Amino acid sequence: MLAGRQRAIARAITLAESNTAQSRELIRAVYPHTGRAHVVGITGVPGSGKSTLTRVLAQEAQRAGSGDGLKIGILAVDPSSPFTGGALLGDRIRMNELSSNPRIFIRSMATRGSLGGLAHAALDAVDVLDAAGCDLIIIETVGVGQDEVDIARAAHTVVVVSAPGLGDDIQAIKSGILEIADIHAVSKCDKPESARTIADLKNMLMGDPSFSHEEGAWHAPVVGTSAETGAGVSELLQKIFAHRAHLAHHADGAARARARAETRVLKIAEDAVRATFARQSKGDFSGLIDALVKRDMNPHDAADVLLAGMSHRE
Amino acid sequence: MLAGRQRAIARAITLAESNTAQSRELIRAVYPHTGRAHVVGITGVPGSGKSTLTRVLAQEAQRAGSGDGLKIGILAVDPSSPFTGGALLGDRIRMNELSSNPRIFIRSMATRGSLGGLAHAALDAVDVLDAAGCDLIIIETVGVGQDEVDIARAAHTVVVVSAPGLGDDIQAIKSGILEIADIHAVSKCDKPESARTIADLKNMLMGDPSFSHEEGAWHAPVVGTSAETGAGVSELLQKIFAHRAHLAHHADGAARARARAETRVLKIAEDAVRATFARQSKGDFSGLIDALVKRDMNPHDAADVLLAGMSHRE
Repeated sequence: MLAGRQRAIARAITLAESNTAQSRELIRAVYPHTGRAHVVGITGVPGSGKSTLTRVLAQEAQRAGSGDGLKIGILAVDPSSPFTGGALLGDRIRMNELSSNPRIFIRSMATRGSLGGLAHAALDAVDVLDAAGCDLIIIETVGVGQDEVDIARAAHTVVVVSAPGLGDDIQAIKSGILEIADIHAVSKCDKPESARTIADLKNMLMGDPSFSHEEGAWHAPVVGTSAETGAGVSELLQKIFAHRAHLAHHADGAARARARAETRVLKIAEDAVRATFARQSKGDFSGLIDALVKRDMNPHDAADVLLAGMSHRE
Repeated sequence: MLAGRQRAIARAITLAESNTAQSRELIRAVYPHTGRAHVVGITGVPGSGKSTLTRVLAQEAQRAGSGDGLKIGILAVDPSSPFTGGALLGDRIRMNELSSNPRIFIRSMATRGSLGGLAHAALDAVDVLDAAGCDLIIIETVGVGQDEVDIARAAHTVVVVSAPGLGDDIQAIKSGILEIADIHAVSKCDKPESARTIADLKNMLMGDPSFSHEEGAWHAPVVGTSAETGAGVSELLQKIFAHRAHLAHHADGAARARARAETRVLKIAEDAVRATFARQSKGDFSGLIDALVKRDMNPHDAADVLLAGMSHRE
């Protein structure tokens, strides 16, 4: 895997997804080899065109650099359904175009069930891709849901994709993720409505009370892109590299590195709580649940009992 | 609050949202008075029309029952933004029509920041409304994101709202929540495309491999509704009451009660992990984060250290 063999990478990610004692051993072994890749989170609401943009950006990035170009990892975090057994988005099919390029590794990761674990598994997979020598890792997530947004935030550079002309409900949800953008990409800029979306975003950013006037502060640029015409894709990649350079020479970089490490640990700890709970609620914890249902016990005291038993993981 | 005074209820929910030692005391005191209300989760993707349906359903339900009718609690869990300082959905404004009715209590709850806590706070608020004498409590959440879906699942009856003619990206996300429906509502059934949506849903349900042929098993009905014409709203309410009766006379009811209790405890425990982590990452845990950034430590071992210290909550 460390030599960058695609099948070994795929197997390592599958192991990471299993969240077992073995997968933890894998990450313990892999982690010292990480820290070299630049991780880009691409997020946006459903319909924003982020999958298509991910595809064209990956192709552009692969051609960057000297010689054979850069080595790219793509992690697409998909909504999935037990009715269909997997991802539904048509964009996934177009993603397959990329997989013929030996210097682009693509992996889809389905949204998990109620036991969660998506963020933890995705961030473990990023470690695997990093250790396997990827120069640039793109994590594409839908920008709704705590776990999905946390995954995007755990990148070095967060690109939030906005599409022109989406409905109000969609915009309302989108507004919750605009704040995490290091770079704003407006998709479908071949459409005339996109000029309005770009102007709206710029206005919003100028009115942001957290706008920093400090010298050298990063101000999220707004880039119009079109997967159709290829416009703006190269500019977007340049902005990503500019942000990487900013992080290397500014205190933001160290802060981001700490925040990423914190998210990793927190997501692992949350998963451990859920796993312990799932095991215990069928076992030792069963009587406590009965008492809760009968109102003989209250949920806060029950949570204290659960947490007191958390010092051992299986 | 137990006497049902609106201002006292509002204050109790604000306290519950604070997630402090005091709020935990409140829930400890309130919890023995809960278990009487029927809790309905209404969920759907952005644009599905769930807010509007919640409004008309609440009005219909309020008029049900004898005398002054039923007492209704509505908890609307909103996407929010630091740019706007609150909920953006236009539906919230229309919700205000309801608040003139003294037997309908409405509360909006914003999606929290990265420390989470939304599910925990929402479920605490349901306890408050239950103890305050609400007959029916409607929790409206957007059906994307683990926390949001978990909130809906913690209801007795889950209504998943589908709108005719949404895009593929949206449908892909929707498919992840269709499985949790006890009742399917198709909104905007005044539109001709709705017949197709209803037919598609019925087909999907018939093809579901988990369809139970057991006698007395609940089969999620599909109800066409229109907030515009009022069509189907009364039928939807009847289906909710039918599901309540089903839970009272079938093993599903006990299973649902246990699942609800489990979700409560799990969400509280997860919040406690996040709170401890947020506190510790600035304090005792700071050196550990440094070691992670330097790759001298790996995230799984760091999580073990965090969890080992979890037996005490502040």
